[in-house]
Amino acid sequence: MDLSFDGDAVHAGPDARERFYDSRGYGRTTGGDLTLAPVETAHLLYRGDVDTVYDERDGSRLDFRGLLGSAAVSEVDFFVYKDLRDRGFYLSPAADDQADFTVYPRGDGPWDDTTAYRVRAVGERTDLAADSLRRLVASTAAGEAVLAIVDEESEVTYLGVDERAVSGSTDHEIPPVTGELLADRVVVWEPPAELHGKGFYGQRLDQAGDPVQLSLVEAAYLAGEGGLETDSGDGAITERGRAVEGERFDRRRRVYAALRTAGVVPKTGFKFGADFRTYGNVESVDELGHSELLVRVLPGSHTFEPRDLALDVRLAHGVRKTMVFALVGNGIEWLSVTRRTP
Amino acid sequence: MDLSFDGDAVHAGPDARERFYDSRGYGRTTGGDLTLAPVETAHLLYRGDVDTVYDERDGSRLDFRGLLGSAAVSEVDFFVYKDLRDRGFYLSPAADDQADFTVYPRGDGPWDDTTAYRVRAVGERTDLAADSLRRLVASTAAGEAVLAIVDEESEVTYLGVDERAVSGSTDHEIPPVTGELLADRVVVWEPPAELHGKGFYGQRLDQAGDPVQLSLVEAAYLAGEGGLETDSGDGAITERGRAVEGERFDRRRRVYAALRTAGVVPKTGFKFGADFRTYGNVESVDELGHSELLVRVLPGSHTFEPRDLALDVRLAHGVRKTMVFALVGNGIEWLSVTRRTP
Repeated sequence: MDLSFDGDAVHAGPDARERFYDSRGYGRTTGGDLTLAPVETAHLLYRGDVDTVYDERDGSRLDFRGLLGSAAVSEVDFFVYKDLRDRGFYLSPAADDQADFTVYPRGDGPWDDTTAYRVRAVGERTDLAADSLRRLVASTAAGEAVLAIVDEESEVTYLGVDERAVSGSTDHEIPPVTGELLADRVVVWEPPAELHGKGFYGQRLDQAGDPVQLSLVEAAYLAGEGGLETDSGDGAITERGRAVEGERFDRRRRVYAALRTAGVVPKTGFKFGADFRTYGNVESVDELGHSELLVRVLPGSHTFEPRDLALDVRLAHGVRKTMVFALVGNGIEWLSVTRRTP
Repeated sequence: MDLSFDGDAVHAGPDARERFYDSRGYGRTTGGDLTLAPVETAHLLYRGDVDTVYDERDGSRLDFRGLLGSAAVSEVDFFVYKDLRDRGFYLSPAADDQADFTVYPRGDGPWDDTTAYRVRAVGERTDLAADSLRRLVASTAAGEAVLAIVDEESEVTYLGVDERAVSGSTDHEIPPVTGELLADRVVVWEPPAELHGKGFYGQRLDQAGDPVQLSLVEAAYLAGEGGLETDSGDGAITERGRAVEGERFDRRRRVYAALRTAGVVPKTGFKFGADFRTYGNVESVDELGHSELLVRVLPGSHTFEPRDLALDVRLAHGVRKTMVFALVGNGIEWLSVTRRTP
């Protein structure tokens, strides 16, 4: 049984097909023959199932070391392929450019029409354009879109990526209020009880009845809805926001408004290093549930570094919240990223 | 008893001194009289201990709202002052520019020669130059240097800042090895057992005896120490590192080397969003303890955003490690930043 490498793929006959495809899900069949991708071949070589393959190009023989050291196999792909095999999955190179591997449910294989994960394999230093994550999600009709990040010590971290519809059921009538713009916030000196008590706007200086301090983003939203007046006039709050935060302020204001419109209450996510934490259903601040999401607001053109993603997602997981990225372009797209253990 | 504001400070007589300084630690004494900083006065006004103060400049009377809305008191200072008072501390404006407040141990006050914390109060959008943190630490002879960060909803997060001597007791003789430079790592195909087993260099492909993959930073360090040779020649590893990481690679290599020299084993901190996690005392990888530090490598000129600090420190706390920033300039300075609840 000989395996022959043409520089792109490895070809073998019916014996190899029976042994590697039929019984263990390697490769794909072409007629009665077998075609193996270089990464699949590297795994067979690594395991010792095959000793060497014949290189048609120069008549040499390639062993595991030779193939892994060649340009035909990326180390990142190999480590992800191996790790998923070690976890008991069969997988194949993906048929499109958005993902690298199609992973079948445990027990299934390439002869089944099932998908557990569509995996994109990247190194820890690979820049990840937000757009490429969106495309990975959009191209994943069946199964789950997953990033497999290989760190510099070749450990693999799996992150599930998905669109996230954000919605809640918070809906209170808040009487219009009057506030005073200070350096970095607005104080409502005589707030109606509903402002903080029901709407969960701002923060009381101490207790119920006390003045309520609004953050600039809360104040800008309320002012835009006609719910807040200040002596500083329309636009002063947004101007102040832009002065202290630049264009990030406008993005945050749009995301804040979208969350409120969806019935979700955004509060500062500062303690978690995020823009907002959110509460889906606030009846009253005295009976506040657990906040569900951490939201980071980013421009739609953002490029993620895998390390920053790992940090955000790990923190969110540790505090039992879901990390959501609000990508602001013409509209707002919501991507959740979560820890995964396939 | 009248309090008189000259635009910088508030002055009052012996009655006020007795009532506010002697019994509750507000202000400082000048002869038999009392001088209050605006932030202290704002707190007395807020509590209702004083209704208004006389403004010498225009003959008007200032209430809490008037003083807080004026330029004399920053909201950030007020929220920190109030929060520390609420926690049972007496505190005074600091005598130097590095800190904003000197906080006395509970039960002590400005008449004691004791310090619990030297606190710098900042808003969540204040840029924090690494150098200003170093100066805060350096100027703190007694007590602890603390950052008090006021978020946009006026909650205060306290972070302790300190120099951190990094040292461990790991010390093994590792025989020199030969490796092969792949795209993003070096593989030692026939490693001596000590390389990974004692020195905790790299990662085994699977089990003891397998090839060991070294990260580029590990490989560059070993090559620099004469412990690794590759066919690619001297300098190729560092060149590759710079190609994939830019100048960050040189900073990481220096910090890696400093940690190894100090007897500490750095391994990747990727899963924690950091550069390294560290082990102070590795006898053998089979009896590995808990890693103690998360190290983020930064240029000495770095400017922190409070939100990023909050994220790093919160994560480190959640995984029971200490966050350490390695600031690389001519030398390396190590600053630990930890969660504090005064």
